Amino acid sequence: MGTAEFDLISRIRARVAPRADVVLGIGDDAALLEVPPGMQLVVTADTLNTGVHFPEATAPADIGWKSLAVNLSDLAAMGAKPAWCTLSLSLPQAEESWVDGFLDGFLALVELHDIALVGGDTTRGPLSIAVTAMGLVESGHALRRDGARVGDDVWVTGTLGDAAFSLNEILAGGAADASSQLRLDRPVPRVNAGLRLSSLANACVDLSDGLLADLGHICERSSVGAELNLPLLPASAGLLELKHSVRWPFQASGGDDYELCFTATPRHREQIVQAMDFAATRITRVGRIVVGQGVRALDDNGAEWHSSRSGYQHFR
Amino acid sequence: MGTAEFDLISRIRARVAPRADVVLGIGDDAALLEVPPGMQLVVTADTLNTGVHFPEATAPADIGWKSLAVNLSDLAAMGAKPAWCTLSLSLPQAEESWVDGFLDGFLALVELHDIALVGGDTTRGPLSIAVTAMGLVESGHALRRDGARVGDDVWVTGTLGDAAFSLNEILAGGAADASSQLRLDRPVPRVNAGLRLSSLANACVDLSDGLLADLGHICERSSVGAELNLPLLPASAGLLELKHSVRWPFQASGGDDYELCFTATPRHREQIVQAMDFAATRITRVGRIVVGQGVRALDDNGAEWHSSRSGYQHFR
Repeated sequence: MGTAEFDLISRIRARVAPRADVVLGIGDDAALLEVPPGMQLVVTADTLNTGVHFPEATAPADIGWKSLAVNLSDLAAMGAKPAWCTLSLSLPQAEESWVDGFLDGFLALVELHDIALVGGDTTRGPLSIAVTAMGLVESGHALRRDGARVGDDVWVTGTLGDAAFSLNEILAGGAADASSQLRLDRPVPRVNAGLRLSSLANACVDLSDGLLADLGHICERSSVGAELNLPLLPASAGLLELKHSVRWPFQASGGDDYELCFTATPRHREQIVQAMDFAATRITRVGRIVVGQGVRALDDNGAEWHSSRSGYQHFR
Repeated sequence: MGTAEFDLISRIRARVAPRADVVLGIGDDAALLEVPPGMQLVVTADTLNTGVHFPEATAPADIGWKSLAVNLSDLAAMGAKPAWCTLSLSLPQAEESWVDGFLDGFLALVELHDIALVGGDTTRGPLSIAVTAMGLVESGHALRRDGARVGDDVWVTGTLGDAAFSLNEILAGGAADASSQLRLDRPVPRVNAGLRLSSLANACVDLSDGLLADLGHICERSSVGAELNLPLLPASAGLLELKHSVRWPFQASGGDDYELCFTATPRHREQIVQAMDFAATRITRVGRIVVGQGVRALDDNGAEWHSSRSGYQHFR
């Protein structure tokens, strides 16, 4: 490689801030971490590959941000507070400017949530970013997929469909408008919302595969069904300009939203609205949990609607 | 991909055994784990890429074994007991038989150490395996790289050089003998040895980059130097047949041994021999820690020797 002078690990290490519960960070065989008494450990691992999880032309800083964001979104869906992460970076070649750009995005999100990057490795190979994120939750208070009860409201945070719409425009050779593309490139994990929901919601999932698919996961794990009112789905100003028939598939099945979908008893409605107000997070009630199985999506007339898209799938 | 029926995650999940401290394993947004009071969490993440960390012709089961083994070796070097792991698998296509073979190797090691596979993902992309391993160690008892003291003995487990010798033969177009190749394909992480050394050793590192480089890490972190007696380096019967000039470079700088190198006060010699006897692990005293910096390798005459090889490097 002829890059003996280019020490990637030192480069990363020099930019990592300490954290009191990190006994040993980068630089030993493994990291050594303190989990406070009364807390449970929450762990998630997601890999991003070029051309699969982001278009090849994506800026390094956006790739850095997104590779951590998708993992923090999983922690958010558990109601966990992010604490530590590891980063395994495979790179075709050691390009200083690429790595610096990548770290700009990755570390911006690290700092925002006071996370410590505690380990990982850099290897030669096709561009691939494997991140493991670890968080903490009070014992017994994690949000899970299997807690939904018949009669629960179904809520979603933020707006849906922008990321998938933007990707669709890019793949069709056009350009997405800036705000939609930001949703694709820089998803904001709903960490604060998840933390405040842990005592209010019965079940929660993050929206990575699309609302129908992900709410379907809650239904399957909770042995319930769900009804979804498509006209209620929250949309950005840009998407609101589109016809239902164009917009709904992106909102219901588009994927890559990284919003939270949660269920809660109607008795908690007021508290939920207040809590999400404190978390500066828009929320919308979009359906309810019913007896049965699977998700039924209903149009303006209450008739069942079938999407022309299915959730994003790799091998499944 | 046309493989909707081929659910990789279910395939993996069906083969994973439960563990009492796993509150939630595969199937939610993240895993939920119990760290017992008085224990610290030990975390390491290593990625294996085809053509970089293993020859392309390596059997899937060997890749599966090795991808976990290199991570458990890091836990061993910390004196930690393995508990949980995540697996992120990128595959060019969803080949059932390849995945089954891979899991045979990976899960054999999982079962051997009673580890729970608690999460991860499968994605489309060039073959790459990212594993995060988590272990537990009594608070304050982890083995570290920074504890070596002047006057310590330097010890290594097992024998050195077989994996690098085997890889060298393969790359030269020849065939390695079976026992050397086993050392390359199926390294045995020194988990039991590490656990028994945690109260006896002052510093420890696992040998992945080669003895000179890895002992160098101990020296750097501990602000000491080391003298290494090359004629003392333990060799397999096969390697013993080679001349010093051929053997030493593989043993001192070859990498991929996944043995432990540790330092300890000479007062502990007898206890160490007994402990390693209990762990059924061969050990050899190969040098000592001295005032200074860096590692000096000495030949039969006590003269300094310089390797024709340097430790395995990716970008560094």
